[in-house]
Parts: sequence; C-alpha cells; structure tokens
Amino acid sequence: MNYCAEIIAVGTEILLGDIVNTDAQTVARALSELGINVYYNTVVGDNPERLRAAVEIAKDRADIIITTGGLGPTFDDLTKQTLAECFGKKLVLNERELQKIKGYFEKLGRTMTKNNEQQAYLPEDCTVLENDWGTAPGCAFFAENTHVLMLPGPPRECVPMMRERAMPYLKKLSDACLVSHEIKIFGMGESSVEDKIRHIAEKMTNPTLAPYAKEGETLLRVTGRAGDESAADALTRPVIDQVYEILGDCIYGTDVPSLAFVVLETLKKQGKTIATAESCTGGLLSKMLTDLPGASDAFLGGICAYQNEIKEKLLYVPHELLEKHGAVSEECAAAMAEGVRKALGADIGVGITGIAGPGGGSEEKPVGTVYIAVSDGVETRVKKVLHQRDRGTVRNMSALTALDQVRRILEK
Amino acid sequence: MNYCAEIIAVGTEILLGDIVNTDAQTVARALSELGINVYYNTVVGDNPERLRAAVEIAKDRADIIITTGGLGPTFDDLTKQTLAECFGKKLVLNERELQKIKGYFEKLGRTMTKNNEQQAYLPEDCTVLENDWGTAPGCAFFAENTHVLMLPGPPRECVPMMRERAMPYLKKLSDACLVSHEIKIFGMGESSVEDKIRHIAEKMTNPTLAPYAKEGETLLRVTGRAGDESAADALTRPVIDQVYEILGDCIYGTDVPSLAFVVLETLKKQGKTIATAESCTGGLLSKMLTDLPGASDAFLGGICAYQNEIKEKLLYVPHELLEKHGAVSEECAAAMAEGVRKALGADIGVGITGIAGPGGGSEEKPVGTVYIAVSDGVETRVKKVLHQRDRGTVRNMSALTALDQVRRILEK
Repeated sequence: MNYCAEIIAVGTEILLGDIVNTDAQTVARALSELGINVYYNTVVGDNPERLRAAVEIAKDRADIIITTGGLGPTFDDLTKQTLAECFGKKLVLNERELQKIKGYFEKLGRTMTKNNEQQAYLPEDCTVLENDWGTAPGCAFFAENTHVLMLPGPPRECVPMMRERAMPYLKKLSDACLVSHEIKIFGMGESSVEDKIRHIAEKMTNPTLAPYAKEGETLLRVTGRAGDESAADALTRPVIDQVYEILGDCIYGTDVPSLAFVVLETLKKQGKTIATAESCTGGLLSKMLTDLPGASDAFLGGICAYQNEIKEKLLYVPHELLEKHGAVSEECAAAMAEGVRKALGADIGVGITGIAGPGGGSEEKPVGTVYIAVSDGVETRVKKVLHQRDRGTVRNMSALTALDQVRRILEK
Repeated sequence: MNYCAEIIAVGTEILLGDIVNTDAQTVARALSELGINVYYNTVVGDNPERLRAAVEIAKDRADIIITTGGLGPTFDDLTKQTLAECFGKKLVLNERELQKIKGYFEKLGRTMTKNNEQQAYLPEDCTVLENDWGTAPGCAFFAENTHVLMLPGPPRECVPMMRERAMPYLKKLSDACLVSHEIKIFGMGESSVEDKIRHIAEKMTNPTLAPYAKEGETLLRVTGRAGDESAADALTRPVIDQVYEILGDCIYGTDVPSLAFVVLETLKKQGKTIATAESCTGGLLSKMLTDLPGASDAFLGGICAYQNEIKEKLLYVPHELLEKHGAVSEECAAAMAEGVRKALGADIGVGITGIAGPGGGSEEKPVGTVYIAVSDGVETRVKKVLHQRDRGTVRNMSALTALDQVRRILEK
C-alpha cells in the first residue's frame, strides 16, 4: 500500500514568523526514506479550533498524521488534548512518564514547576514515544483508519525522536522502498544544471532525476523505487554515471554532507594539514571546517586578520604590498595564504580577502569582490570572485569557493 | 476589517525535507507588522492537482493567499499556471519582463536558455511585482473576493520581494496596527521564563506577552493592537517595564538583533577593541561578530588555535600550563584570553576552550565542558559551562555565552 502522510506543525510562533519550521524537514526526510509520500504539510497556531479543523482536513486526505510541537509545559501547549478529542480519546496520566520528568529536574538540581506535569498526560492506550532528549514524551495511536504520531517541537528533540522512535514505529507500515542519491555540484546554478540534464531527466519516471538549488550549490537527486533497497539502488546507478559524464568536475561528490567534509577527508587521505587566513569571511571558513568532528586530524588553526596591521603582524603580509595593491587584491590573498602556511606550519594555506558589504565598495572593486588564494608549497592559485549579493551571501560563497579551490588543488 | 491570510509554499523539495520553508517566516513576519493574521500555512509539492486543492481550501478560509515558489524556469515550476486556472485567468506574455530577463543574462555574459521565457508569462491584468534580485517576477491580483500574491521561492529573492513589493501592495488593505517588541534573554530557558512571568501574562489579552524558545536564548514578545502605531506601542510600554523588573540582567536587550550586535555597539560606545582566541568553537565567535557590518570598528581579529602547539606559538600559552592543566581548563582559557589581547593589541580578549564532542570527553571533563575567559586588562573572568548536547549546540552555546560574558564585563 502506498501510504500518504500529512505533517502538521503546531505553533503560533511559526505562523508569526518567529521561527522557521525545520521539524517539517526532519519528518519529511525520514518519511522519504521509508517510501511514505508527503503531499501536504500544514502549520497552525496554538489554537484548538483551527488545529481541529486542520486535523479534520488531514483525516480526509492522509493515512498518517504526524504533528510536531505543542507538547510542552506552558498554557498554550494544546496538541495532545486537541488530537485526543478529534479521535474520541481521553488523556490519562502516565505515572512512569511523570516520574521521569520529576527525575530530570532533580538531576539538574532544580525544582519541577507544576506546569511540567501536563507533559505526562497521554491519550489512553497510545504507544509512548520516549523522549530521552527533553521532558515531553511523544505518542502514537491508530484510530478512525488513521495513524497519528505526536512529536515534540524543539528541533533537538524532534530530530532524534523522529529517527529513534517514530521511524521504527512507521517501518512496520511501509512496503515500498525508495533509495535516493544526491549528486552535489558547486559553481553551477540550478537552471544551468537543469539545462544540461533535461534531455535525460524529462523522460524518466523511475528512477527520477531532479535538480534543487541550495545555498551556494546545486543538488541533483536521483531516486529509485522498488520492492527492496538493493533493487531500488540498482535503478539509480546508470543515471549517476550519465550525470558524471555530463557534469564532470563541477561535481564535488555524491552522498557527501558538504564541501568541507570532502576537503577534510581528502586532506586526511593525503596526510596533509591545512591552515586558514581570513579577512572578510571573519572565521566562517575555519568554522565550516571545524563543524565536523575529527577536523583536528587535518586542520591546525586559522587567523582572522580583520585589520591591515594584523595582516602585517600575524601573516607577514608586507606593508609595501598593502600600500601598493591594497588589502583586497590578488597579491594580498596570496601573501595571506603563504603567510598562514608558514605561521602555523601547514601543508596547505588558504587566504581570503574581499569586500563583503554593504559598504566598502568602489567602481573598480565593487561589493562582492573577493580574492581567494590556496598555497600548497608548490604553487599559489588565486581565484577572483564577484558575488553581488548581501553580506551573508558574499561571505558564504567566498568560504565555499575557498573549499572548492582546495578540493581542486588536492585533486590535481 | 480583520484580514486573514494563508501562506502556501509550493515545492516538492520542501515536502521531501530537502530544504526548510524559511519563506513562510519571511512572509508571516511581514504580515504581522501589517496587522494581518495568519491562521494557516501549507506546503504542497510541484503538483498542479494538489496545489489546486490547497488553493480551493484556502479560498474558503482566507482573504489573502500568498504563494512562494514555483515561478522559475524549470519544467516543474507551475504556480502561475495553476493559480491562474483556479481563478479563471489566462497567462499572458509580458514583453517588458521578457526583455528584463534577457538583459539579466546578457549582463552576465551568458546566453538565456529558452526555459527562462516562461518566467515572463503572467496572469492577465495582474499587478507585476518587479524582481530586482532574480529573474522571476512575482504578481498580484484580486479575484473571487480573494487577494492573491505570488512570490519567488529562493529566500534571497523572497525576502526583498516581500518587503519592497508585497508589503506596499498589502498596506492599502490593512486598518489595524500591531506593534511588537522583543525582549531578549540569555541564560534562562523558556519554561523558567514562563514561570516567572505567567502571573502577568495569563490575564493579558491586549497587549499579549508570550515566551518563545530560540536556539540558545529566550524571547519574550509583547504585542499591542490598536488603530494606529503609537497607540499600539503605548500599550506595550508598561508591560516591558514590568518584565525588566522581574528578569533583570538576564535581559540583554529589547528589539536588538543579537548578542553580537549588543556587544559591538557597547564596544563602540566605550571606544574599545576586541580580539578572540578560539579552540573548540573554531572561528564561530569571530564569525558571529563579523556577521555585522561595521564590526571592524571594534573587532581587530581572532586566532583559532585548534592544536596545542598553535596555542603555545600564537597565543603564548605556556607549555608547562598545558602539561599541568591540559588545554580544557580555566587556566588555559585565561591564558588564551590574555594572550590574544597582547598578540593583537586589543582592549578585550576572549578565550574559549572545551570539548565540543562527540568524542574527547572523560568522566572528569565530559563532552560539553567549555571554559570561557574574558580579559579586560583589569581582570580575567572565567566561566565554566556544561552543555551536554550535540557538537553544533555546544559550539553555538559556548560562543553565545562568551558574548554574554563580554556584555556583562562591559556593563559592570
């Protein structure tokens, strides 16, 4: 049976735009792995009438309803009460969960405020979805031909709850298997990628091939559907090969989490170390590398030289060079890359200098002009980019371009 | 009239969980400022039948429908076609928009692929919402008693389109005014804050006072509603005063974008400079400071010393200290803060050292143990934190705690 799910996020703060609904992404990705389709996702506020209305609509069009949010201790946490009413169930105190919540507060040396008790009330006869990452347990039940799962809202709880509790519960329902692979591309926009692969993608129904634009990169998702995982996977392989033939080295990897990951893995494989010298990116490049556990196997450290004097003092950029070419120049980027290589004793040095904006641009060097240098002791390659965008995008694209340049120099 | 809007995001990649629906937040925040209520937001895939079904439901329950996404050049961009059909309108080629799109490609020295033309087809008689940040224009029309606005999906286009095009269009419809102020709190969780303010918040209907948990901080939103902006604002003021009396210096500011902003502003006001020395946060603290334009007025630079040898070499942390106390210690954090102050010649130095995880912990110093030191030349204050969470959260909370510690030392 092809199950179809609807995700309902409960929370006025999402409707008001105070926070972004990342839980929907968490739940949807997991459902995708299980071969469960999601055709709608909805957000309602902390309002029982509108939540009830949304649930009634969902009952009509979905086999599985998964809610996120509204399980907490405050007066506007109303999900369980409302969903229980929609399905004619009572809420019942679960002693074990109450003790768990009390114990959580004791361990922190804090008193449990009374409002936390409501988290231990659950729909009668439900399956409790234990929450080891927060205080509010989730729950699941089957009623009126609908599977209902309720998960907590905070992402650091929702993520493991979906993976460790909801997915095992749902696995029993699913009989189709979807396998996806993500081909990751840097330096080509979505419409350019689509233009190059359309002739193969348009005709395909299984597997499917679709491009997605992500911040700073493009992703091509190949998805195969079959009765079991290995048959589904086998469908994707010839398509992946075709894409590699078409797109070549714009592809930085398949099923890899990020450019930073690929760079670190390659450095480790080659037994090399790296150090970073940043100006306009302000630490973003070293942050990207150190996002990953085990970065210390290859990353020695970085210098953020936000003033010219610091470039001279810590990166040995000659004063005359700065006078002659300015900080935003090919020459300065190269000197920064070579300087940090020596200062930290690394095999690879990276230097980034540019104008992130919104101020600081000129006709000759507009906002978004950034020079990225990679020095490996044999050569120093400098790339100039121009991203005429907002400050955050200029910084992000520059740091990613630096990673891509390191990748290319390592793969040469 | 109290207008009510529904936001429909179009995009299979959102349903599949490939990306997060940040556009809903953008649109919702703007609507909130206009006093337009949002009671539902929905996500559908790139599927005309399901989009049509969602629009039919929205027609019933909302006065304003705002869609995001699906305006692009690829074969699955179907929003305009579908919405036009729902409201009995034809799509007509807009010559001016077509020329604009052609011109955009010429300026980049690229050929416009034919698929980009579809972006110039718009519903007959609509108001064109010019897109100066991408190629796909949005549009707006009024039909069947419903205001319909269609905006592009990519956030860097949706954000300015909402603010510069959609908001002026919608301002004409709104007669109520909502004014909100955000009181920002660091170091207290949502349920603790709620517990302290519940006795005033529970009874209030106008203004309203509600707590929201955000990554690493808590926000209290006070919202007043009246016929005009200054009357609405006047309602919020006494409540804000009450909250300050209750929560004291846990509040880092009201209507300020971030802790980093407050720290930089305070440094500038006091004519002081700052330098950062990071280990486990890997550049995240300097990245947070440099996210803001004008950071260079106070921020000199930072050193990410990811290995012990680099702490010794660049931050003058004595070898004996590292041997005796280890890198994850109060002593090392203090030495890093004082070392970077001297190395860069700053008034304030910050040192952060700890175990971000998932590996590296011990019984004595578990994962999440981080020491944060702030040195101002008069004293060096060290704070130990323990955030037993995932790597990203440990790093984020540590960097934020460092900013809060700088704030407190500057405000003493």
